[in-house]
Amino acid sequence: MAEPLSVALVGIGKIARDQHIPALNADPDWTLAATVSRSGGVDGVENFADLPQMLEARPDIGVVSLAVPPVPRFAMAAAAIGAGRHVMLEKPPGATLAECHALSAQAQAAGVTLHATWHSRMAHGVAAAKEWLAERELKRLRVTWKEDVRRWHPGQEWIWQAGGLGVFDPGINALSILTEILPAPVHLSRAVLDFPGNRDTPIAAELDFAHPGGAEVSAVFDWRQEGPQTWDIEAETDAGTMRLSDGGATFRAEGAAPVEGPDREYPRLYARMAELVRAGTSEVDLAPMVHVADAFTLGRRRVVEPFDW
Amino acid sequence: MAEPLSVALVGIGKIARDQHIPALNADPDWTLAATVSRSGGVDGVENFADLPQMLEARPDIGVVSLAVPPVPRFAMAAAAIGAGRHVMLEKPPGATLAECHALSAQAQAAGVTLHATWHSRMAHGVAAAKEWLAERELKRLRVTWKEDVRRWHPGQEWIWQAGGLGVFDPGINALSILTEILPAPVHLSRAVLDFPGNRDTPIAAELDFAHPGGAEVSAVFDWRQEGPQTWDIEAETDAGTMRLSDGGATFRAEGAAPVEGPDREYPRLYARMAELVRAGTSEVDLAPMVHVADAFTLGRRRVVEPFDW
Repeated sequence: MAEPLSVALVGIGKIARDQHIPALNADPDWTLAATVSRSGGVDGVENFADLPQMLEARPDIGVVSLAVPPVPRFAMAAAAIGAGRHVMLEKPPGATLAECHALSAQAQAAGVTLHATWHSRMAHGVAAAKEWLAERELKRLRVTWKEDVRRWHPGQEWIWQAGGLGVFDPGINALSILTEILPAPVHLSRAVLDFPGNRDTPIAAELDFAHPGGAEVSAVFDWRQEGPQTWDIEAETDAGTMRLSDGGATFRAEGAAPVEGPDREYPRLYARMAELVRAGTSEVDLAPMVHVADAFTLGRRRVVEPFDW
Repeated sequence: MAEPLSVALVGIGKIARDQHIPALNADPDWTLAATVSRSGGVDGVENFADLPQMLEARPDIGVVSLAVPPVPRFAMAAAAIGAGRHVMLEKPPGATLAECHALSAQAQAAGVTLHATWHSRMAHGVAAAKEWLAERELKRLRVTWKEDVRRWHPGQEWIWQAGGLGVFDPGINALSILTEILPAPVHLSRAVLDFPGNRDTPIAAELDFAHPGGAEVSAVFDWRQEGPQTWDIEAETDAGTMRLSDGGATFRAEGAAPVEGPDREYPRLYARMAELVRAGTSEVDLAPMVHVADAFTLGRRRVVEPFDW
């Protein structure tokens, strides 16, 4: 086996503790060599108050993984690339498409790896759904992504601030799967975005897509779902139906073996990052983010009741 | 001189009569061979009620120019490319970025020319401003685009409908110049969009951009400007100041000869289209539209007083 890769993890919040740190600790191919956090790090790992200090003090760490909200991420990614480090970005890869294009160009010029991750694409059932759809003619596809924002983003004010994406923060996970499993690209034809009267980002959205073969493709995202949570993609084709549920983890289809298994999204993201770094290449697919930007551009805004935690 | 190119012009509205038709009539390199319009065409030119009829009846016409609003444009462009025609798109090239990517891919696969035009880039002073800025270090740049919507878009309801872009319809002209003249790309860092309470698109916008060299780059778009109209880009550098005014037509700078002249934007767009068709290549730069999509995604929404004609 190759020498383990050293990574500094920036932003020690919920997603870092729930996903990044367990994935890194379980993988002999990776060493969590430092953290960057103003609110405390991880036992036994050197913590820095800010990224410039870490970049200065630890030239031995070749990879920087950014688990911070999209708005501050650009400056950090640009600084890390500028210091010759490989960079892995939590989804979405930035607050704007233009900054993602700029980072891609910077990484290419610097000869380092940039990996814009889409963790939901690594869910168990996604590859099976893609294979199944590739052999069939799509008639109808419906994305239903309904969850309780209070449960999954408790007190996270940045999601309600302009640029925080609101319900598109989980919704972009659905779009990352959709753009992965569909054989032909779709584009948004209509969108309605529901904004709470006291918030700058939407709490719900309905999207219709135009499909080159004329299939009906639509999505509904809602952050007001209490009780059971729903992260489903259902498709009807000329040869049966399929359902990808649990955020991509479970695949069921007529005439195909079921696929499911325990969560392995972040372990697979880090495995992919190790491959990219060793191969000296980058992976930046902005298609899910293009659909989000298109929804904000094309979408009709509806004001709905105020949201308070 | 090469054989003139035959073009069908689709959408005989204000922009067609003010710009496309005079440009085509004055250019011996082009023949306006047909129009497509439900509300009447041009004396002496065959008119069709819809595009499919024209594509069927006139296989001799190799080029289709689309001067219709962005929302219906995709289906028309896809049909024209599907019928093996070269396509020229009014700005903006589509209602969504995803559909522009899809058209580019379709045109490439079909081996036809796709030209996403940005008429303001063809204004007299733009090339001089680009050259002047290329040799200097930018300190501050300010875009001021203030016009009277009642004067320039009288009764055009589509500009207020979701997807119609509102004040970004003229604002994207400013962004097309900005992205052309700046030596290094910028990305949006903050935006405030003012929506009239009774409309789905903004009537004004303030944009701040991050510049790789730390220059202050900002833009203000406003559709409520009565009296004198303003379409200016002013820049301060380490070696003097410049002003590009009248929508790019007039260039003035310290230490440089002034540049100005009569409007020649659409004649130059058709000249460029002829070059592209004969060279068998396409030109689709989505950078101005990326900034618009980023502004809708990142922008804070402010509700302002209702707008009525």
